[in-house]
Formats: sequence, C-alpha cells, structure tokens
Amino acid sequence: MGLPEAQAESTMGKCDDLRHDFLRRYEQIRSATEALCDPLITEDYIVQSMPDVSPTKWHLAHTSWFFETFFLKAHLGGYREFNPHFGYLFNSYYVTVGDRHCRQNRGQLSRPTVEEVYAYRRHTDEHMRRLLRDLPDAGLAALAPVIELGLNHEQQHQELMLMDIKHVFWVNPMRPAYLPRKAAAQSEAPPMRWQEFAGGVCWVGHEGEGFAFDNEGPRHREFLEPFALASRLVTNGEYQAFIDDGGYRRPELWLSTGWATCAAEQWNAPLYWISEDGKWVHHTLAGLRAVERDEPVCHVSYFEADAFARWAGGRLASEMEWEEAADGVAIEGNFVEDGFHHPVVASAGAGGLQQMFGDVWEWTRSPYAGYPGYRPSAGALGEYNGKFMCNQFVLRGGSAVTPGSHVRRTYRNFFAPDARWQFAGIRLAREA
Amino acid sequence: MGLPEAQAESTMGKCDDLRHDFLRRYEQIRSATEALCDPLITEDYIVQSMPDVSPTKWHLAHTSWFFETFFLKAHLGGYREFNPHFGYLFNSYYVTVGDRHCRQNRGQLSRPTVEEVYAYRRHTDEHMRRLLRDLPDAGLAALAPVIELGLNHEQQHQELMLMDIKHVFWVNPMRPAYLPRKAAAQSEAPPMRWQEFAGGVCWVGHEGEGFAFDNEGPRHREFLEPFALASRLVTNGEYQAFIDDGGYRRPELWLSTGWATCAAEQWNAPLYWISEDGKWVHHTLAGLRAVERDEPVCHVSYFEADAFARWAGGRLASEMEWEEAADGVAIEGNFVEDGFHHPVVASAGAGGLQQMFGDVWEWTRSPYAGYPGYRPSAGALGEYNGKFMCNQFVLRGGSAVTPGSHVRRTYRNFFAPDARWQFAGIRLAREA
Amino acid sequence: MGLPEAQAESTMGKCDDLRHDFLRRYEQIRSATEALCDPLITEDYIVQSMPDVSPTKWHLAHTSWFFETFFLKAHLGGYREFNPHFGYLFNSYYVTVGDRHCRQNRGQLSRPTVEEVYAYRRHTDEHMRRLLRDLPDAGLAALAPVIELGLNHEQQHQELMLMDIKHVFWVNPMRPAYLPRKAAAQSEAPPMRWQEFAGGVCWVGHEGEGFAFDNEGPRHREFLEPFALASRLVTNGEYQAFIDDGGYRRPELWLSTGWATCAAEQWNAPLYWISEDGKWVHHTLAGLRAVERDEPVCHVSYFEADAFARWAGGRLASEMEWEEAADGVAIEGNFVEDGFHHPVVASAGAGGLQQMFGDVWEWTRSPYAGYPGYRPSAGALGEYNGKFMCNQFVLRGGSAVTPGSHVRRTYRNFFAPDARWQFAGIRLAREA
Amino acid sequence: MGLPEAQAESTMGKCDDLRHDFLRRYEQIRSATEALCDPLITEDYIVQSMPDVSPTKWHLAHTSWFFETFFLKAHLGGYREFNPHFGYLFNSYYVTVGDRHCRQNRGQLSRPTVEEVYAYRRHTDEHMRRLLRDLPDAGLAALAPVIELGLNHEQQHQELMLMDIKHVFWVNPMRPAYLPRKAAAQSEAPPMRWQEFAGGVCWVGHEGEGFAFDNEGPRHREFLEPFALASRLVTNGEYQAFIDDGGYRRPELWLSTGWATCAAEQWNAPLYWISEDGKWVHHTLAGLRAVERDEPVCHVSYFEADAFARWAGGRLASEMEWEEAADGVAIEGNFVEDGFHHPVVASAGAGGLQQMFGDVWEWTRSPYAGYPGYRPSAGALGEYNGKFMCNQFVLRGGSAVTPGSHVRRTYRNFFAPDARWQFAGIRLAREA
Repeated sequence: MGLPEAQAESTMGKCDDLRHDFLRRYEQIRSATEALCDPLITEDYIVQSMPDVSPTKWHLAHTSWFFETFFLKAHLGGYREFNPHFGYLFNSYYVTVGDRHCRQNRGQLSRPTVEEVYAYRRHTDEHMRRLLRDLPDAGLAALAPVIELGLNHEQQHQELMLMDIKHVFWVNPMRPAYLPRKAAAQSEAPPMRWQEFAGGVCWVGHEGEGFAFDNEGPRHREFLEPFALASRLVTNGEYQAFIDDGGYRRPELWLSTGWATCAAEQWNAPLYWISEDGKWVHHTLAGLRAVERDEPVCHVSYFEADAFARWAGGRLASEMEWEEAADGVAIEGNFVEDGFHHPVVASAGAGGLQQMFGDVWEWTRSPYAGYPGYRPSAGALGEYNGKFMCNQFVLRGGSAVTPGSHVRRTYRNFFAPDARWQFAGIRLAREA
Repeated sequence: MGLPEAQAESTMGKCDDLRHDFLRRYEQIRSATEALCDPLITEDYIVQSMPDVSPTKWHLAHTSWFFETFFLKAHLGGYREFNPHFGYLFNSYYVTVGDRHCRQNRGQLSRPTVEEVYAYRRHTDEHMRRLLRDLPDAGLAALAPVIELGLNHEQQHQELMLMDIKHVFWVNPMRPAYLPRKAAAQSEAPPMRWQEFAGGVCWVGHEGEGFAFDNEGPRHREFLEPFALASRLVTNGEYQAFIDDGGYRRPELWLSTGWATCAAEQWNAPLYWISEDGKWVHHTLAGLRAVERDEPVCHVSYFEADAFARWAGGRLASEMEWEEAADGVAIEGNFVEDGFHHPVVASAGAGGLQQMFGDVWEWTRSPYAGYPGYRPSAGALGEYNGKFMCNQFVLRGGSAVTPGSHVRRTYRNFFAPDARWQFAGIRLAREA
Repeated sequence: MGLPEAQAESTMGKCDDLRHDFLRRYEQIRSATEALCDPLITEDYIVQSMPDVSPTKWHLAHTSWFFETFFLKAHLGGYREFNPHFGYLFNSYYVTVGDRHCRQNRGQLSRPTVEEVYAYRRHTDEHMRRLLRDLPDAGLAALAPVIELGLNHEQQHQELMLMDIKHVFWVNPMRPAYLPRKAAAQSEAPPMRWQEFAGGVCWVGHEGEGFAFDNEGPRHREFLEPFALASRLVTNGEYQAFIDDGGYRRPELWLSTGWATCAAEQWNAPLYWISEDGKWVHHTLAGLRAVERDEPVCHVSYFEADAFARWAGGRLASEMEWEEAADGVAIEGNFVEDGFHHPVVASAGAGGLQQMFGDVWEWTRSPYAGYPGYRPSAGALGEYNGKFMCNQFVLRGGSAVTPGSHVRRTYRNFFAPDARWQFAGIRLAREA
Repeated sequence: MGLPEAQAESTMGKCDDLRHDFLRRYEQIRSATEALCDPLITEDYIVQSMPDVSPTKWHLAHTSWFFETFFLKAHLGGYREFNPHFGYLFNSYYVTVGDRHCRQNRGQLSRPTVEEVYAYRRHTDEHMRRLLRDLPDAGLAALAPVIELGLNHEQQHQELMLMDIKHVFWVNPMRPAYLPRKAAAQSEAPPMRWQEFAGGVCWVGHEGEGFAFDNEGPRHREFLEPFALASRLVTNGEYQAFIDDGGYRRPELWLSTGWATCAAEQWNAPLYWISEDGKWVHHTLAGLRAVERDEPVCHVSYFEADAFARWAGGRLASEMEWEEAADGVAIEGNFVEDGFHHPVVASAGAGGLQQMFGDVWEWTRSPYAGYPGYRPSAGALGEYNGKFMCNQFVLRGGSAVTPGSHVRRTYRNFFAPDARWQFAGIRLAREA
C-alpha cells in the first residue's frame, strides 16, 4: 500500500504480464480461501467464540467487500452493489468508509446465509475478472498497488480463518477437528546453537521491489549492537521445563501487566494446553493430541514469551535484529500449503538459522511503531496499518497457517501482548 | 410437578385413557415444536443474540434432554444415552443433575449440527413412545406427573423459541421476518371500562384437578380489599401518550432501580420500537411495520408497566386480584395457534373483561414468591420453579406466542423487572 | 410521613405540648447523633469503604441537609442556605429536589472539612430551634408530620453510621475498634421452642396513632394460614452447624441468584467472620474477637438466612406473620442505648417470644411491596420509601444499633437480598 | 540503582564529602516533601480520587517505607520496624518484598492517622540520620547507589503528590485550590520555529557520571535520520484551534485505541478543561481560571498529543531525537521550586530550543522499552523500572511540578497512552 507514483509508472511497460499475473493470482488466492472451508459444515461458518474471532462467513464476505469497495464501486462504471446491507455488515474498521457493525457482535448474524455469502463472492469475482480484463493499461498500472493490497489482504484472512476456526472448535466441549493429522517426518529436534551477528549500521525495511505493506517502509538505517540468535525455535520440552520450574507462579519473571493478566486469566500453560492425568495434551486443528516435546511451542502471548526468555537467561530479539539475521535466509518453511497446520520439529543436521520462516510467528521485543518517515497513504486505505501502532508487539517470519507466498523478510505482523490465539512462538536472542 | 401421592393413585383406574392421551399429546406437542422451525434455515438455529436468549438448536436439544434425563435414563431399562456430551451441553440449570455448559456461551457451539439435533429428537421420540407403550399401569400412573411436566416444559420452550428468534432477527440489521403478517379482523379498540370486584377472603392457587406447576399451589386463602380491573389491555396509542408526556424522562414516575435501568439502557420506548421520521415502527415476527394505535402495547418491562400505571393514575393488579377476576372467564384468546404471533386489537362490543388470556402476559405488582406452605418436590425437579423466587415479578394470562392448551387461570409466569423480550403488556387496576 | 389532613388537625389542641416535645426530642436526637462520633478521629469521618457505605461526615451533613431543605428553606422566611454547594453534595436520592453528587463517590470529598460540617449542624440547629419556637400553632401542626419524619430520618442515620463505621474499620487491615467491649450478663442461650399462631384474617399495618413511615400503611387485612415462630433467634452455634454441614457448598439449599452470589463473592461464613487456626473469630465494633456460640448470628444476607432455614427444615416468617406474632410483645430489647453494639445471648427462663425487638433485624420472606391502597405522598418526600419497592426484602424488629425509641411493631426495614453489612439475623418459622 | 561495582568503588576516596552530601540532601528532600503538605488540612490527606491517585498520607508513608525497607531493616543492626502493619500497607508494587494492600483501595484507610504517619517519618529520619552518620566508609560507598535511589524516589513522589492532590481537588464540586496563583512575567509566546538536526549515529543514554535510574542505560548508539524539533511547546491557543477544527470528532486523526478511548470517555478537551459560556476555563492548583492562549497546553494524553501532531502536519519526536536535541541545552526551566505549579508562557526573544526542561513533560513517540543490553538489578529493586516496559510511552524533560534537581537529559518518564493527570504537553517534530 502506498506505493509512490513513480513506481506505479514503472510497471507500465509490462502491463500484459501484469494483467495475466493479476488474473491468475486473483483466481488462485480467491479459490484458496474457499478451499480452506472444505472441511466445514454450515453451522461452523456462523460462530464467534470470542470478540477477537470472526465467523468464517464474515471472513468470506469481508474479503469480497474489500474488492467491492475499493475496486468495483470505485472503478467499475455502473457497478451496483450486491446487497445494500453489506457495506455496513462487512466493513471491518474503515471509519472513513462509513459506519459498521460492532465487531464483537459478528456472531449474532444468522443472515445473510452462507449460500448468499458464496453468491456474493461469485458476484464479486465475476466483476473483478471483468475489471481486470477491461481496465486500460494506464488504469491497471495505477490500480496495481491496490490490487496487490486486495490479494495480500485476502491472504491475511486465510490465516485468520484457520486461527479463528481453531478457537471455535476449542470452546466446544465436543472439540471437533478441522482435518485429520498429517504426519511429519522429523521427531527429534537438534540442539540449540547461538548464531552471532556483528550489528552496526544496518538497513531495515522494504526495498521497494515487489509488494509490501506500508508499515514495512520507508527503508532506513538502524544501529544494532552485536547480538546472537538461537538457531531454532523454543520447543515444547524446553517450555515445559519453564512450567515445571514454576514459571507461571513467579512474578519476578514477568512484566507487571503480564503478571496481572496471568493471574486474572489463570494461565498455567500456553493456550490450548490441557493437563490430563499429569500429562499435557493440546487442542490442534487435527483435534486433541499429546504435546510432543520436540515440536516448537505455540500459542504463547508476548507476556509468556518474554517471561520464558528471562527465565532462560536470554531475551527476545528486536525486529531489526531479526530482519538483519534473516538476510540471505531462504523463504522456505512449514506454511499452510504444507498441510500440517501446526509447527513441526526442526530438521536435524542443518546449519545456520532454522525455522526463520513458517512454523510460528516469532515474538520480538519491538513495540509496533512507524518507521522513521512513515506516513500512511491518504484515504480509507491509510487505515490499514498505521492506526494500530499502539500497545502491540511485532512478530516476524510467518507460521504453519500462513500462505507461503505471503511472507517476506521485512513483513511485520503485530498483536497485543496478551493475544494467544495466533500461531506464535519463541526464538531466543542475547547480546553477543 | 409435585403432585401428591394421592392424586397419582387416583389416576389408576383410567390408565388406558391416560396412556392414549399421553401418546397423543406427546406426538402433538413434540411435532408442534418442530413445526415452529419450518420458517428457519440452518444458520438461524445457531445464534444467541443476548445471554437470556438461547439458540433454536439448543431449545430443540434441551427439551429432548429433559425427556432423556428424567424418563429414559431413569426409567427405561438398558437405555444408552444418545451422545455422552449432551448431558453437559443441554442441561439448563439443574445443578443436582450435574455440571453444565455456561448459559451465555450457548451461541458458541457450531456442533452438534442441526441435523444431529433432529436425530437426537428422533432417538428420544422412539424411546419415549416405547416407554409410554410398555410401562406397566402402576409405573405409568406413578410417572404421570413427570410426563405432564415434560409436556408442559416443552410447551414453555415453544414460546421461548419464538421470543428468542424474534430477538435474533432484531439484532440483525437486515431484520429478517419469521413469517409474513396474518391480517387481523379488528382495527379499533373499544373504550376502556373499569370492572369492580368486592374482594374479601378468596381462594387462590390450583385446585388439584389436572396438571399445574408446583408454584401454583398450595391452594390457600388471601384477603383482598375491593378493587377494579380495566376491561382491556393498554393500547399502543395510550402508551404513546405516556411517551409523548415525557414518561421516559420523568424519574418521579419510576421505581428507583427502574429509573437507573432506563437511564443506563437509554430506553425511550418499548423494546423493538424504532422512531423513523417521527413515526414509531416496530420489529415483529412479520418484520418491521408501523405501530398501530389500537393494538395492545407489548414488550414492556415491569419498570415501564409500573411507571405507565402511575402516570395513568392507576396501578398494576396483584396476581391474586387477577386470579380472582379471571374466575369464570373462558380461557380463550389470541394464542400461538391463531398464527398472529402478535397481540391483536380487542374486539368491540364485548362485555366483561377482555383479553385476559392470550395476546400479552400481564405484569402484576406481585413479586414472585412461594404460596403459604409451598415446598418444591425433592430431587432435581424441585429446581424447576422454587429457586427462582427472588427479584422477579409474576405475569398472568398467556400471550400470542403461548400454546392455548398451556394456559390456566392459576398459571404464574415470572420475569425479572427489567426483562422486555417476552410478550408482556399492561392491564390497569385500581382500588374500588 | 403522609399523615392525612384530619390527623394534622387533631394535633391542634395540644400544640404547646407538641412544641415542647419537638424541641426536646430535636435536641436529644441531634446530640445523640454527635455522641456516636465521640470515639472517632478526623480521618475516620472521610472514608467510604464500599458504595453502600457513606462517610460519617456525609451522614452528619445529610441529616442537616434534610432539615434545611424540608423545613428551613421551605418554611423559615429569609433563611439563607449555609453553603450553596451543600444542596448538591448532601442530597441523597431526592430527584425532585435537584441534581446530586454520585453516591459511590462520597469518599472522594476531602472538603467540606469535618469542622465545617459541624458548623453546618450548629447553623441548622440554631435555625431549627427558632423555627420550632416561633412557628404559629397552625403551622406547627401542619408541619408536625414532616418534623416527625426528620427526627425519625436522623435516627435511621444513627444506625447507618454505626453500620458504616464498622465496615470502614473492617476493610482496614489494622482493624481499629470503635469502643471497648461491654460485657453482657448472659452466656448460655435457652433451647429454641415453637410458638404457634392461629392465623385467619388479621389486621396489618400502622393504626394511625403516633408517627409511622408511609410504607407502614394503610392498615388493612391479610389472611394468614396457621403458623409457628421460633421462640428466639438462631445462634452462632446453630449457624456453625450449617457451615459444618456444607451449607456454603450445597446449591440445592440456595436460591438460584443466591448461589450465584455466594460463588461470585466466595462466601463461606457471615460477613465479618474470619477463620483463624480452625476457629471462627469476627470483627465487631469492639474489634476482633471469638465468635460465641450462644450469641445470635448476625450479618447474614437474605440468601444465607433463606438457605439456613431450608437446611434447618423451616422457613422464614412472612412480615405479616411476624407482625401478628409481635402483637402484645413489649418493645424491649438490646438497642443502641444499651451500649453493646452487638446482639447478646437470649435470657434463660423467659416464656413467649424472645428477642423480637433489638439484637438483630430479622429477615422475613416478604419482598418489600406497597400495602393495598398505598400511595406515597406528593412531592419530594414521596421518594422516601415507595420508589424502593423492588428487589428488596423486609426485615423486622430493630437491632443492637437501632435507637430504642425508633422501633415499632409495624416498622418495615428493607434491604437487597445480598446485603450483609446491616445487623441482620434469623428467626425460624414453619407451618403450624 | 543498578550502578556497576566499579562505580561504587570509585566513590570510595571522597567518602566524607559523600556522607555530608547525603546527610544534607536527605534533610533537604525529606523536608521538601513535607513542605508540599503545608497548604493541606487533615481531610485532604485521606482521599483517593481514582485508582491511579494515591492519598497524600500514603505518599508520606510509602517514601518512609522505602527507606525503612531497603536501608533500616536491611542494614541497621537491631532496627525494629515502626509498625508491623506498615510493610503490608505501604509497599507499592514490590512483589519480591511481600504481599501488599490493593492499590485501588488506598483511600479506604482512615488509620494510621496523619499524625501517626508523621511520627513514622520522624522515626525513619532519626534512624536514617544515624545510619548515614555511623555506617563505615566501605558500607556507605556500597550503599550509595541505593541511597541515591531512595532520594530520587522521594522526589518522584513529590511530583506525584501534586499531581494527585490536583485531581483530588478536581473531583470535588467545591474545587478547592492548593495555593493562590503566582503571577508569571510573560504573557505572549514567541512564534514557533523549526530547529534542524543532522542525525546519524548518536550516543543515547546515561554516561555513568552521577546518579541515573537503571532504565537510562546502558549508553549505546542509535542511528537517527535527519529531523527537526519545534522551538517551543504547543500552546493552549494552538490546541484550541485543533479542538475548533473538530479534532475530537475526527477519527482519521487518531490511533484506533485512542479513538475508542476518546469516545468511551467522552473527551472533548484536555483534562481539567471546562467549557463555561462558550469559554474554556481550567482547574489548576490555584483553582479554576481562564485558559490562557499562550501558555503551553497541559494534561493531554499520548492519544491527544499524537492526534494533534497529525492534525498539525507534524509528529512527535522519538525519545532519541529529543535526547540528541537536548545535548548542550541547559537544565533550566519552570520547576516546582519556581512556585507556579503550572506551565508558563515561553519567553520571547530567546534563540534555540526553549522549554526543553520544566513546564510540561513532553510526550515522545517512543514506546517505553529497555535499551540494548538493559538488565534490571537483582532483587526487589530490580522491580523499580523494568517490569513496566509494556504499553507505555516515554516522556522527557520534567514539568512545573518536578523538583529541578531531579531532571536529567537522559531521564525517561513513562505513562500509559491514555493517562492525563500528569503535567504532560506537546512539542512538535518532523523529518528534516
């Protein structure tokens, strides 16, 4: 979002490629969204299990609303909206666009039906195809950043849909499974090593080649003191040692607000963990199963990640350190396309930093803030990122439910420090 | 519920009749429940629009759970429960029976599916039929009070289902309708007259002939001072005069807690009323339509009924006065079977008390308490009524969504004084 | 309050007596209020330990405000109010009189100082004396009911002051004592006996001779079934047996809302009880001391009184039964003037009903409602009682912190069913 | 706090000076605290007007508790604590030290009396003097960092006492004044200029010379892009233009959480501002008076500062930019000793950056986080700063109620983004 004019022009020459690429990716991403719903039955689409969660139906409709609002209504002459209620119902947080339905009441809507929502998607797709085909080259180039934003936006909701349905199944005492478990190759994690980095003046942020969200720029310099990162993610076994050592009962390990949250919510383990006959089991998208000690720990809050790191004698990385360390690391890993829908054991025998991409989002110690010189774009799309820069922490690297093509080295995910339903885990850092 | 031994024995001689009657009424009542769902689609069954509301799916399952728990598990040898989760999920408030799912989270359950819930009903029906057919005469007679309770319980939930789905449709900005409106014959209400009663020592409570809930007895004497009741219900037009006279802005008309509620909830009209361009419209089961001045006012809280009565220079009747006045009044009126699903205009030209049964439940000034000598029965079914005798007010007479066969002169409905989603209205009273 | 015109006239002939009586009682009651503050230091006057509690300073000022508002401003020509802020600050709940300071913020006021509040009292007293002396006979007679109300109002606040300071000392971990303990004569309670009453049509409510609050009338008839009352109050020992028998862990003994409250508040004993090394001690106005088994139990809510009675196989009396039973019982007992400030052991060897007056207010099973024909008076003083007739229960008989001259057989005290800081206890009843 | 061993040793040689300096500063700071209470009467010491506010009495006692706990109990042989309750009552947030009284209930304590608290201070002072005199040189040197911390801690509470008493007087409808207003020389603010800074690699954090809180180190490098700071603080007049331009009604200017807070709290101006007859007046420590257009705006939250800066086309500075810009600026300004107790108009004709120190704390855009390599000290005093590094923003420069000797260029104050009762204002920044 917010790509400068100059860049929009530079895409001009390659407009046919661009058009084909957009048409292809539009189809691919829109159908990937719906493929995620294959295991669901109608009732599953309706439920909102907590205020942060949205019903699947809402995600399906909201992503269409995004294209309808920012493309079809804005740029397709004579377009008539599918349903006059949908502008109100499926606007998430764009106050500039107009009033919207209260977020925490999304589970109160039996109508529109799931079928109507799919019809809304059909209707949107049909008109989007037409728009992408018929737009003159100049118009296409001008709209390219917004189209990219729409596609990336839909991918973000793909991840949210899996996060949310996992929670919906969790609050149900019958604990349904989304899909049967897919077996992973690895069962034993390699020992953790420290990898050192020299720091100094480093460049941080997106280069301007290809799409990035506005919060990934401007590219700028940061000074980093020497630091070291752990070679792999923290495992369940390591986290259990923290639990066994009284980690959830020792306030001196926690931030003050973290401790208050821990006490108020009666946390004693990551979200989805249950103690059964002295053993930990956890709820996954494949149902309830034993916590395996070599898998990366997942569904911890910033507060827990921070307390664990303190207990372990380390700390979390800053997001700049993480980005610097990820330089040259291939963007490969366990993504949603791999079908595990859960982090897997780090492979043995590999050198360098492992699991930097995929598996779990890695909490950093960096509060989410705008980079020097950051300006959100004008208009409604300026609300995409900037207005959330308060009381959130940055996570990096993507997870087992993130689309692989969605992740970047400069990608900045962010959540409040008490949020746990996202697939978030821990990588240790320390001064070098 | 709570019928004495003696009465159970007295049903002995007529056991064949009883058996046929039970089988017939069981079929009739169970299928009436399901017929109410005909206008719904799957999504409508899932939603809980506020803590007091239950999803339709829950009502369908809970009424089966009642028969399964108190009959099949208790009295059908070798019966296996349909699903081991259902005891937890569909127990409403019987702490004696065991733990239960938190009431306000009923809308968080996508599973069991609607289809599974209907299968649960089929399964229950099949075994209930068998039990009703095969039970020896003595057993049938002994169980008769509980069977009656199960049937009456299911009827109560029929009314709740319509109350609840009305609210579910209300919170949806698309405001779906349950069914198209059925036209009523009458359009002009007759003038209100006062009908006087001498009072004195009166008998109050159920006679012991036929079924009654335990809270309707014991029959006992009360001393009533002379009083008068209004010949018909308060109309929308009369209520609008109260609104227009500042009824919702004058604390001196309200109970102290009522005024606090009015301010906190920003009440300015009955529930479901909306002011559009200076005219009142209201949400009904037939969708949004104009408020008609001669229809009885509906969906007012006790606080509003009490404030209106004070404004009008009258008061609400006590439940004993109401019961005394209803003596000899035929149990006829606008019930659910009439298909209006809304109160209708009182007929012109009739003498005596009109609209005593059906249309709207009439708030009385009587706090809900046990009659002298009241004892809930032993065991779980003792939780049916007695434990709610606190901070509630009694309503009498049944409503447009009550099954006609469910109402009695001694019937005591009760709601908290701030509840408005039930079909409740106002009849004035005064000293004679 | 609300004495009819006729009665006001009938006082005409004895105006000199009346004047002297008022002057005498005004001095006596006003100075009794201040005498209660003797053991306090300045800091104690300021604190509000929970929303229901008012600071001592507030009580001192509010009772003056009452006289200033309803007498001096209304009837003393040329009277200038003491401080223009006080009308706002010390109006309790009279919406007709004007806006007022938020009740739960009464502890936020450091000013006016305690000294200024005493000056306010001096100022009020001086003008009240003048008014009482100089008012012509007709005026005095006309105002007599309001003067009586003002005196009785002040007495009510005397009791509230002790209730409130007890709570203020309770929340302080240093647990100060108000006064040293005064030893009581008796240490062993007589056995409990049942005393039976025939019931029938009984007269209930104030006769009209002497002062009564408006809620004590009109005098009217009630029909009572035969009943029995316990000869004395329930003791701590008896209540402890209820605790030991799991009374606080057995939902079947409790009203539904009561059980929810018990769980939410984690009640496991009466208010002010603390378990120390397996023994119960309790906070009293004389500080922390052992719970003595023969003293009446005190500081229980309606929910606890009701659960205890159910556990004991009895019930609470209705307020009409209590009033009928109290007919002919002398209004004697342990009142504030006795200086115990706590209920004492029932004397041995006495016949009839003991402890009907004084010691503890006795919870009745009667929700607080207006008697047949009840009308609050017009104007602000009509707010005194009537607007609270919702979700409260009636208590009878007065307590160890009630002025003896304040109690009547027809006196109706009332509290919400979860309130515990008033001196409330239990007398059992049953059907005869 | 947290000064390294090396530094402690380096103070060795000058122990006599140190001892005299400590004795002198101890007397000065302790008596300055009490001098702040001169205008108060007993009642003012007791009140807690909101959870963030503490009663004056509590501040007086807590600062003594700090010395008693970390010096006397720890290092004065045979010391007996003044009152065994005080450890519980006056521990603020040191979980390592033990349980403590609930923060939000500090206003519920009438005892200990104000007099007893002063006695506690006398007792502490006497023993502290003895300890400071008698401690051997090596011990004194070892304790020096903790003594410094105790003195700085007491100074922080001096500022808190004025912030808090201002709020206590604010919630009182009588709005008392703390002291009469002291007239300021200046009445017209000079125009705002931009002062540019080159940025690059800059050193940030305390040098290690003299005392600093642990959160001011370690000194480290940061890379800053070129930036500019406004020459003076934002004035009331400038802020009023923001209000008049709909600043409080335009969500696009606000952070998302900020807007939610603004709506929920119904903010329409800074804290303490009241609109009277179309003019703004505000509550100050000198009572209610007109808002003067050239005085710096004060009592705005981070949310308001951020929204104002966005509206003005600028932004807030980062704390590193602020610190870099303050290099070489003399630590002079309007501090508590100046007796204004309110920010004053910037002087005309001065060059460079004005008002960097004193007047108001300046919100920065920097979330409060540990510097690279930051480690809190071991033990209870490690709780002083580190555990609050979450969901707070840094403020720089001191205010009109800060002791002048307490401020440093590297000083990091911090508050939650919605806090407004501290003396906080705005300086604009932008990219250069």
